[in-house]
Amino acid sequence: MSRSIDLAVIPGDGIGQEVVAQGLKVLNAVLPQDVKLETKEYDLGAQRWHRTGDTLPDAELEALKNHDAILLGAIGDPSVPSGVLERGLLLKLRFAFDHFINLRPSKLFPNTATPLAGRPDIDFVVVREGTEGPYTGNGGSLRTGTPAEVATEVSVNTAYGVERVVRDAFERAAARPRKKLTLVHKNNVLVYAGHLWKNTFDRVAAEYPQVSTDYLHVDAATIFFVTQPERFDVIVTDNLFGDILTDLAAAVTGGIGLAASGNINPTGAFPSMFEPVHGSAPDIAGQGKADPTATILSVALLLRHLGYDTEATRIEDAVSADLAERDGGTARTTDEIGDALAVRV
Amino acid sequence: MSRSIDLAVIPGDGIGQEVVAQGLKVLNAVLPQDVKLETKEYDLGAQRWHRTGDTLPDAELEALKNHDAILLGAIGDPSVPSGVLERGLLLKLRFAFDHFINLRPSKLFPNTATPLAGRPDIDFVVVREGTEGPYTGNGGSLRTGTPAEVATEVSVNTAYGVERVVRDAFERAAARPRKKLTLVHKNNVLVYAGHLWKNTFDRVAAEYPQVSTDYLHVDAATIFFVTQPERFDVIVTDNLFGDILTDLAAAVTGGIGLAASGNINPTGAFPSMFEPVHGSAPDIAGQGKADPTATILSVALLLRHLGYDTEATRIEDAVSADLAERDGGTARTTDEIGDALAVRV
Ligand SMILES: CC(C)[C@H](C(=O)O)[C@@H](O)C(=O)O
Ligand SMILES: CC(C)[C@H](C(=O)O)[C@@H](O)C(=O)O
Repeated sequence: MSRSIDLAVIPGDGIGQEVVAQGLKVLNAVLPQDVKLETKEYDLGAQRWHRTGDTLPDAELEALKNHDAILLGAIGDPSVPSGVLERGLLLKLRFAFDHFINLRPSKLFPNTATPLAGRPDIDFVVVREGTEGPYTGNGGSLRTGTPAEVATEVSVNTAYGVERVVRDAFERAAARPRKKLTLVHKNNVLVYAGHLWKNTFDRVAAEYPQVSTDYLHVDAATIFFVTQPERFDVIVTDNLFGDILTDLAAAVTGGIGLAASGNINPTGAFPSMFEPVHGSAPDIAGQGKADPTATILSVALLLRHLGYDTEATRIEDAVSADLAERDGGTARTTDEIGDALAVRV
Repeated sequence: MSRSIDLAVIPGDGIGQEVVAQGLKVLNAVLPQDVKLETKEYDLGAQRWHRTGDTLPDAELEALKNHDAILLGAIGDPSVPSGVLERGLLLKLRFAFDHFINLRPSKLFPNTATPLAGRPDIDFVVVREGTEGPYTGNGGSLRTGTPAEVATEVSVNTAYGVERVVRDAFERAAARPRKKLTLVHKNNVLVYAGHLWKNTFDRVAAEYPQVSTDYLHVDAATIFFVTQPERFDVIVTDNLFGDILTDLAAAVTGGIGLAASGNINPTGAFPSMFEPVHGSAPDIAGQGKADPTATILSVALLLRHLGYDTEATRIEDAVSADLAERDGGTARTTDEIGDALAVRV
């Protein structure tokens, strides 16, 4: 049997290049001999935009469709107006490839620093909706730049979009030992979207009697993230709330240097895309200071998505073991962490 | 000289009644002899709604306008559909009385429990916009309850609304020792509203060269709330981000039992309203377990708003001293905490 992975790589900006190199190093190390890995790099991001004005031309969007998956480093640079690359490249990919599951596991690994006293036992996963909510780009501005300006942002929520992510979250919760799913929204204020989310959640819940369910307003959820994070198992939430909560989750589980994510289209109609939660961190770019662990854990999510469960678990175990042995003394370089993990897998 | 305060009191639901009683006790204790305090209680909230179907009838809204200020306990009960009392009473008051400044100070008092290791030095205030953003009730639902449902929520932002809250925040920052103001938004995704906020902020900043400024995306802000909260002095942000961030702020500074807030109309056109950040906590209502400190600190904000600075500071100092002496042994009742603070002021 001969197997292969045809991977698109978008290193992007800032530390993106460095961390992606380590992700590929570990991917190469963990894959069995018989799996043929092909990678193709796409030059997209701030430099490309400065050079050509392109964020994501149609030809490249088409070409990207043909890969099995995408590994992305980080997008964004202060030299580019805010929103241009986010909306023109990163979100464009998530929307064009219908990445409706934005999967973000949060685990407090042994021996990692957390700002929380008492080191609670944290191991939950956020299933963030990826193609709707306030991220759709609906909205506009009237009389822009005048004292009479009105700017709107429209959160769009469909039964179609909400149900598919809620179902996915119930499936994930049912497959985990604790079998608990929490819906996070703000249905006491955002009543239209809130009711759609809550009603869909309650209806699907009836099909999963083995899953215990819970509802929290997003503001209350942030409290529990710091006072009682161990109460969470799987969380399902909207695109914007998920964005906010997963940065907070990363912070309490040792920082965004460790937080992985997958932008997943479970139907397989388009390639899924895996990326660290962190940004391009231009302040430390090129200095070998970036922690590539988040990218390497994103490679594990990528492998699991493609059916390489054993290899995914090997990466996760390697990270766990590596973190347990980090002594907090001399910081290792990006390269050294990548090497250490490549050896371990 | 004879002075007077004509106060409207809305105890509301759950623990609202209990904590408001303590707030009034301390208010009575701190006020100088020559100040005549008149209070009028309004029966609004879940019980009233169950009895009559009313949330906030016009006659009461009119009557409330004539008071100098409003003290509110908490609104909400699980027996009332989510959104009914929030939108029909609490938010109705904030919008009808144009409470465009939602002021929420966050301070880690000595000797209070924080979930953060290392007990950082936290002392910042969030100036949350109170009359716009996703809270306006704009939006709707089409084909409700069918598989083809579309639900929208519209965030409305005006130059008028953004500029007045931004100016207020710059004034507050300029009056504080550290003179630092951070704008929190998500202008890389919510580009229309984000640009309005950022452009307004930058324009007003030019008038306050003594204030140092900073911008953070809301997701990144949550990280700093737990890893580096001491970096914040004054934060200005939109209605929804402010809602989320102030619950998180309360959690890291000892819990929502201590978090005070003021819904302020600085023009004086309508009465301002003061309330604890916490909710009605029906699970502990009527048991004397609620901490009235958040309400008592809200009374301090109320006094400062009405020009009683000395008395406001006396309450805040009393809380500080009281917290410093709490021994974490036997928990005191709601009443005991109120008594202790009434004696101290
Ligand atoms: C860069 C930005 C557009 C993005 C988002 O808001 O989704 C990021 O914060 C993330 O969480 O992946
Ligand atoms: C009860 C709810 C409507 C309210 C809000 O969202 O503003 C509350 O969370 C608050 O922060 O005062």
